[in-house]
Amino acid sequence: MSEIPYKIYLSENEIPSAWYNVRADMKNKPAPLLNPGTGEPLKAEDLYPIFCEELSKQEMNNTDKWIDIPGEVLDFYKMYRPSPLVRAYCLEKALGTPAHIYYKFEGNNTSGSHKLNSAIAQAYYAKKQGLKGVTTETGAGQWGTALSMATAYFGLDCQVYMVKVSYEQKPFRREVMRTYGATVTPSPSMNTNVGRKINEEFPGTDGSLGCAISEAVEAATTQEGYRYVLGSVLNQVLLHQSVIGLETKAALDKVGVKADMIIGCAGGGSNLGGLISPFVGEMLRGENQYEIIAVEPASCPSFTRGSFVYDFCDTGRVCPLAKMYTLGSNFMPAPNHAGGLRYHGMSTILSQLYDEGYMKATSVKQTDVFAAAEQFARVEGILPAPESSHAIKVAIDEALKCKETGEAKNIVFGLTGTGYFDLVAYQKYNDGIMDDYIPTDEDIAKSLAQCPKIG
Amino acid sequence: MSEIPYKIYLSENEIPSAWYNVRADMKNKPAPLLNPGTGEPLKAEDLYPIFCEELSKQEMNNTDKWIDIPGEVLDFYKMYRPSPLVRAYCLEKALGTPAHIYYKFEGNNTSGSHKLNSAIAQAYYAKKQGLKGVTTETGAGQWGTALSMATAYFGLDCQVYMVKVSYEQKPFRREVMRTYGATVTPSPSMNTNVGRKINEEFPGTDGSLGCAISEAVEAATTQEGYRYVLGSVLNQVLLHQSVIGLETKAALDKVGVKADMIIGCAGGGSNLGGLISPFVGEMLRGENQYEIIAVEPASCPSFTRGSFVYDFCDTGRVCPLAKMYTLGSNFMPAPNHAGGLRYHGMSTILSQLYDEGYMKATSVKQTDVFAAAEQFARVEGILPAPESSHAIKVAIDEALKCKETGEAKNIVFGLTGTGYFDLVAYQKYNDGIMDDYIPTDEDIAKSLAQCPKIG
Repeated sequence: MSEIPYKIYLSENEIPSAWYNVRADMKNKPAPLLNPGTGEPLKAEDLYPIFCEELSKQEMNNTDKWIDIPGEVLDFYKMYRPSPLVRAYCLEKALGTPAHIYYKFEGNNTSGSHKLNSAIAQAYYAKKQGLKGVTTETGAGQWGTALSMATAYFGLDCQVYMVKVSYEQKPFRREVMRTYGATVTPSPSMNTNVGRKINEEFPGTDGSLGCAISEAVEAATTQEGYRYVLGSVLNQVLLHQSVIGLETKAALDKVGVKADMIIGCAGGGSNLGGLISPFVGEMLRGENQYEIIAVEPASCPSFTRGSFVYDFCDTGRVCPLAKMYTLGSNFMPAPNHAGGLRYHGMSTILSQLYDEGYMKATSVKQTDVFAAAEQFARVEGILPAPESSHAIKVAIDEALKCKETGEAKNIVFGLTGTGYFDLVAYQKYNDGIMDDYIPTDEDIAKSLAQCPKIG
Repeated sequence: MSEIPYKIYLSENEIPSAWYNVRADMKNKPAPLLNPGTGEPLKAEDLYPIFCEELSKQEMNNTDKWIDIPGEVLDFYKMYRPSPLVRAYCLEKALGTPAHIYYKFEGNNTSGSHKLNSAIAQAYYAKKQGLKGVTTETGAGQWGTALSMATAYFGLDCQVYMVKVSYEQKPFRREVMRTYGATVTPSPSMNTNVGRKINEEFPGTDGSLGCAISEAVEAATTQEGYRYVLGSVLNQVLLHQSVIGLETKAALDKVGVKADMIIGCAGGGSNLGGLISPFVGEMLRGENQYEIIAVEPASCPSFTRGSFVYDFCDTGRVCPLAKMYTLGSNFMPAPNHAGGLRYHGMSTILSQLYDEGYMKATSVKQTDVFAAAEQFARVEGILPAPESSHAIKVAIDEALKCKETGEAKNIVFGLTGTGYFDLVAYQKYNDGIMDDYIPTDEDIAKSLAQCPKIG
């Protein structure tokens, strides 16, 4: 048989010592964030009241190709990294495909996803700046869990605004965060002005991610020694997540394999951006070619049906404007179970790369995603998160195309996390009562019409 | 700093190719199973109607020191093994102890525990014998989950009788099993004679593990092509679980460390027996000395407060008699959240070793266990299962003793699994409403009085 093992592990001293900043290799940089009041491009200092200073600088840094990973962050990475690159021998056999399938598995840590890679970095910079704590919002809870692990490690206070419906329906995620010492508040709450206002306007509301963001930002800016942190979309997050792609590339190099195709699920872009960064870097420098596919839910298709325009990052319209593929900040995604993929916009870096043709995008239906998830779980052992399963679905489709053509392509995909806290969704699928929601053209046109008219 | 990495990984070709059978090195073999009707020792053939033939032989095999791991099982092991031996640097630092703490982490697979090591072996022998499927019972659900993963892999039918109260209160475990294609039936059910009888006698009963065992055994023996499988207590299970100890030993050898102390939680004995096997082997052969500590819950203290006598393995009194440390087959353990440690008896192998002084035992209170679990989670990242946390509690206590004495002992413990499905228990602990239950001497004397009078 092949000499490639099931799990390609790097050794601890092969964990990257610097994050790769793909913006440094981009000829056309991502469009700058704009002040929503003045329409002027923001400088790093403009972000200091909201974000840590070091993170604000990373957010604006379009020039430094490598940014050293601090020693304390590297030590933490060693508790759960390097993550394995797995050769999916069992899936290949089940599909009868000549393709070679690899997946980078980021779920082997208690937060259950790749989110921890950025959470620990953000907590570190907050600690270094001498802050007391951080605030954030969480929907499905993966980011909140990751952040509470990171803040517990550095002894920081952690205040999480959790969308009320998730707070009530996902009590287990909430308890993980509490076990790590975080304060979890259902949003909208009575703690903040914006929360009180929304509770007054919409009594009994279930809350929304947009509202939770607004509360977390207000909480950060009105308490001494606090800053706001975010788990996706931002350039700093993609920077930290480059550790995924760097390890993937190193592991492939170790066994002498060149990827033909790289597939990742895309919500705000944190996983996809991190996974593809070093590969896209080679494309940008003209060194290599890869076929890159972003997979998004048919219920929230920013790339495939959105527009590349300036838009608000939050429904509350208090955050900066970003030029990105968006469905409009008022777009209300249907209740898809992949909570991590329900964002209306997309990382500005990925938006720029997509616009220039460095990657493709496709959207998939929820029931097809769960069918792929189940097939994968049964042969590869891992119960995947619904988000990750979007990439699985397309990887399987591509492997089946190879079966028809006879091509032995090397397909690499990102398996971002585990589905242990998504069993309500699996139950619906098992019971045959899962729906597919696809927005109409009118829905999308209506919310896009409300984007600010800039550029 | 030290050259020992955070995670000591073996390579795939260092996975053991044979299980180690500690009975071969025991001068005094575990007492034989007896026929509950005649009181005669059982032969392997006597077990064929219930267990697969190969597993029945393994159950009785007191002589072969090594039993080859079949290639198909090894292939499956490669999907999640070798499991890491982790140096708990962060915990050591938090405790300020000179001790070196290591843990063997068996939770990095979807079943979430070490149970998969035996499940895949048992499913393999069932497949090889040409069976259609297997039946089993599950309480908390770890074993049922592991078995459903294993049967899915080999394309076998899997019928799980799940204690009714768990079926209703742990719907997520149930859904994992269903996702892997298992049929999960709340017990007592109307599928079996014994289930119907119990439902008639005790209308509305919540069920019990003893009852679920009886139903699973009846289902196995009354359907063509089915056998019963069990996840702990049995000699065959300890044999398969020896892979834990063999890898632990190999990893320690790799970094030149000799364990001084080995700690494991003990319910039926599957994890502890597997972890300590090769170390006890060295003690039995007079090659080395180790301090071995079994940790059990104060609510179900088989070793520390039970008797070493012949007893029934099940409350229904249909299974063979085993000589073991037991609290009596009618003992009703209080509702401790470590469901995997609520068995009234103990592996006959471990019982014999304990009786001869090869290991010590201690019992710990539930609230102390969860305090240790939380402390561990916050510094080591992993959210531990309540069962595993019994070992964590004692490892921390021992490390703190080292802090007083200044000894740099090498403490190794087994971290059997993750607590993602135990968050109701964590919530109780977080809310400060967790109880400790300790049986009275009268409770134990009463149930012990009902043991059969043999030997």
